[in-house]
Amino acid sequence: MGDFSEAERTAVYKAIALRRDIRRQFKPTPIPPEVIARLLTAAHRAGSVGFMQPWDFILIRDLQIRRQVLESFLCERDRAAHRYEGAHRELFLSLKLEGIMESAVNICVTCDRSRGGPHVLGRSTMIDTDLYSTCCAIQNFWLAARAEGIGVGWVSILDPQALAALLALPGSVVPVAYLCVGYVDAFPAEPELQQVGWRRRLPLAELVHLDRWGGRPDPELADLLEQLTQSSMVENKITGLCRWHEERP
Amino acid sequence: MGDFSEAERTAVYKAIALRRDIRRQFKPTPIPPEVIARLLTAAHRAGSVGFMQPWDFILIRDLQIRRQVLESFLCERDRAAHRYEGAHRELFLSLKLEGIMESAVNICVTCDRSRGGPHVLGRSTMIDTDLYSTCCAIQNFWLAARAEGIGVGWVSILDPQALAALLALPGSVVPVAYLCVGYVDAFPAEPELQQVGWRRRLPLAELVHLDRWGGRPDPELADLLEQLTQSSMVENKITGLCRWHEERP
Repeated sequence: MGDFSEAERTAVYKAIALRRDIRRQFKPTPIPPEVIARLLTAAHRAGSVGFMQPWDFILIRDLQIRRQVLESFLCERDRAAHRYEGAHRELFLSLKLEGIMESAVNICVTCDRSRGGPHVLGRSTMIDTDLYSTCCAIQNFWLAARAEGIGVGWVSILDPQALAALLALPGSVVPVAYLCVGYVDAFPAEPELQQVGWRRRLPLAELVHLDRWGGRPDPELADLLEQLTQSSMVENKITGLCRWHEERP
Repeated sequence: MGDFSEAERTAVYKAIALRRDIRRQFKPTPIPPEVIARLLTAAHRAGSVGFMQPWDFILIRDLQIRRQVLESFLCERDRAAHRYEGAHRELFLSLKLEGIMESAVNICVTCDRSRGGPHVLGRSTMIDTDLYSTCCAIQNFWLAARAEGIGVGWVSILDPQALAALLALPGSVVPVAYLCVGYVDAFPAEPELQQVGWRRRLPLAELVHLDRWGGRPDPELADLLEQLTQSSMVENKITGLCRWHEERP
């Protein structure tokens, strides 16, 4: 089965399964430079359209800049709150959606849309593939951080123009993600928006099609996917994805 | 350092470092349903804006559909070739940029831009975060596949409208990635576009800023990042990222 042992393969699935979007309980512990270097190297190892590598990483330690980002967040969050009504709005406003000030470092991941010139290989018909590549780099960073015991929270309730101005981004560079990054004591067992009842995980079986939209997969795969939706314990047995959960107290 | 052992952490970095964009040398071996189920579960475990989970996965085994996708690719590739001149065009046309017919299965990963209704939490100021979430799912899939010894090639030289029509996607659903997926004997040591001299890996040190665009990181981090750009052997020693390369013959 290739150059990964069973244990290595399981470790990759472990990082994928236990990664969470973190907005609370950051510890003030600084992240050592060699760990930051590892995480950034992991991000930089992502594939990119035409090997464009359109990403940059702005580490934000300055608390004054962070406070300005927080102000932008609060302003946009209040604006977003008006879209909801009643209990839904109350729940929305009660959620902790950022860890800007209390995380060890903030990192803005950007995309330089002009890098590599006007004719980037593979970008001729889908111009946004540079943004997509940047997101692949972000996911690498996120998973590596999880394996290091570092929480990452992606804050998207920000005005991208205001953020670009705050960080002095050149005209061709857009912010893709604003990440709050820091050590945490523990990662929640399930996504927080599921815990608070905002939205549930969709059954995977409903998201898989054969050959065209709505095409039903073969019975064997369909059965596996059905079972996957029943419970995480069943999921464990079938995929071996969550074996480590059973090892926990 | 948390709930990952040193060996587990290294395995995550290994998948990140050895992942490649694969377009050749696919083996015809079918992928067992339980492995497909694991890969799709890994994708489905990605974080998403407002827990929107906007992705769907269309597995394409039908060779007639694949041939139509290939025709779309060839048409767009020829169109793209006109953007290059001389030796650059020849090099472009000599590259193998897809494995549509010979891979075990093709998978189109889509994004339903209407899922979760008009007010998805966290999407108020950055509407494309649903596409970004879908890319995080794709990267999960890619890394899990690497750990399974399965190659993935992202084909982006396709007309998204034509692809949507071929796969009968509903109006709110857009194709984000078209993946060729299958077992391979070996993964190239470096990205193919680097191997053929199309474009080189950028020095990571030039992509990292402190506090704002152009801000130089602390000397210690700057030094680490500088060294990271020297050679992969130095990189090995500093980050422990590529230890397994040294173990190879």
